[in-house]
Amino acid sequence: MDTDIIKDLTKVLESRRGGDSESSYVASLYEKGLNRILEKVGEEATEVVLAAKDAAERSAKASDKAPGSVKDDALIGEVADLWFHTLVMLVHLNQDPQWVLQALADRFGTSGHAEKLSRNATSSPDAQ
Amino acid sequence: MDTDIIKDLTKVLESRRGGDSESSYVASLYEKGLNRILEKVGEEATEVVLAAKDAAERSAKASDKAPGSVKDDALIGEVADLWFHTLVMLVHLNQDPQWVLQALADRFGTSGHAEKLSRNATSSPDAQ
Amino acid sequence: MDTDIIKDLTKVLESRRGGDSESSYVASLYEKGLNRILEKVGEEATEVVLAAKDAAERSAKASDKAPGSVKDDALIGEVADLWFHTLVMLVHLNQDPQWVLQALADRFGTSGHAEKLSRNATSSPDAQ
Amino acid sequence: MDTDIIKDLTKVLESRRGGDSESSYVASLYEKGLNRILEKVGEEATEVVLAAKDAAERSAKASDKAPGSVKDDALIGEVADLWFHTLVMLVHLNQDPQWVLQALADRFGTSGHAEKLSRNATSSPDAQ
Repeated sequence: MDTDIIKDLTKVLESRRGGDSESSYVASLYEKGLNRILEKVGEEATEVVLAAKDAAERSAKASDKAPGSVKDDALIGEVADLWFHTLVMLVHLNQDPQWVLQALADRFGTSGHAEKLSRNATSSPDAQ
Repeated sequence: MDTDIIKDLTKVLESRRGGDSESSYVASLYEKGLNRILEKVGEEATEVVLAAKDAAERSAKASDKAPGSVKDDALIGEVADLWFHTLVMLVHLNQDPQWVLQALADRFGTSGHAEKLSRNATSSPDAQ
Repeated sequence: MDTDIIKDLTKVLESRRGGDSESSYVASLYEKGLNRILEKVGEEATEVVLAAKDAAERSAKASDKAPGSVKDDALIGEVADLWFHTLVMLVHLNQDPQWVLQALADRFGTSGHAEKLSRNATSSPDAQ
Repeated sequence: MDTDIIKDLTKVLESRRGGDSESSYVASLYEKGLNRILEKVGEEATEVVLAAKDAAERSAKASDKAPGSVKDDALIGEVADLWFHTLVMLVHLNQDPQWVLQALADRFGTSGHAEKLSRNATSSPDAQ
């Protein structure tokens, strides 16, 4: 299932342009403009941080269970919200989300070639 | 190219567990622990907000050019950094990033069926 | 006017404990709990960032006017919102906001003695 | 002690303008510019959120102790860092931090008159 989800979702987001802001949450975000969309990105980032802390605490308390296999729905939902609002922002600014995936692939050598993983910027992630 | 990038990247991130924190940025994040990873998520979210504001201002100044076709490398790079650090967080907490894609697909009806797009939570995105 | 505002405001915030969450915004925040209060801190921080970028852009466009004398109400209001929600958080966690002022004074040598301004942590502010 | 700390600190921050960015952290922030200052605001906001979650967890574990009297140095330090960087931002943008205190006082009726506490904006705090 995994793959073309971001591509499909991008099409949905593009189709919401000029849409009815009454019935579409995405159209209402476009209409409110960039600041409102970025406020949502900031909000969702904070919610991801809170959900991750809560997930870790729950996990610590349930340490008798086998680790690694339990889906934390709250955390997954918050990350989905965060990614979603970054996608809305990208489409609003006429940026193709595939460019983000390409940037990740280039940086982490997962675009076919073996890991080259060049890294220069201080704050950028590398892999090695 | 688009597709299995997140799956491939997840494998890379999983392989960094217990790795050498000297040579691997990801292994060093795992070693520093959840708070450090979440600090990075928060930092990158702020950098996305700043890059988006700057991209919009640049775009407004260059309004004579054809819109929609110009890739803003700074913004794309910051979104890649943000997604990347959320992936590191998910792997650190034993959560499969594919669950996030599935959550997006379920919510936005892009998982095969036509758009059903049910929405209930107040702060969650819908689509319509 | 400046001075005992934070002390006075702390008293107001403390008096809202166990208050009617229908009529008091602060009492409703306490009732919703720490995560909701921290979500507000995160939201307001993002709004400060956006307001500061907008203030700088407005200021650049109005560069003929005398700088330094124009109050930016939107930015001031957002910073007030941010400080306010951190105060709510402190009171909710039984922390005295005066401790924060004391920490600032200690760090920046404004507590009577001339500047000593020791600084050690990388991410901590110093002054010199 | 409480009171004129913010006023004193503002003077220190103003005196750092054009200062030596080698020896002064504040002068180096001014030199790097608004985006770097706002990145710090975002970083510190995330660190406040993390410190508050950790403080609450510690507090829950130590519930036998008398509540309300224990200063959480880590949390107080992070809030001081956040306030500090918002002060740096205000001074960088030629905004007087006293305006923020005045905004808080006006909103919360702590400026002499009894509580009037008008509230209109949805996202603004009120008091009652």
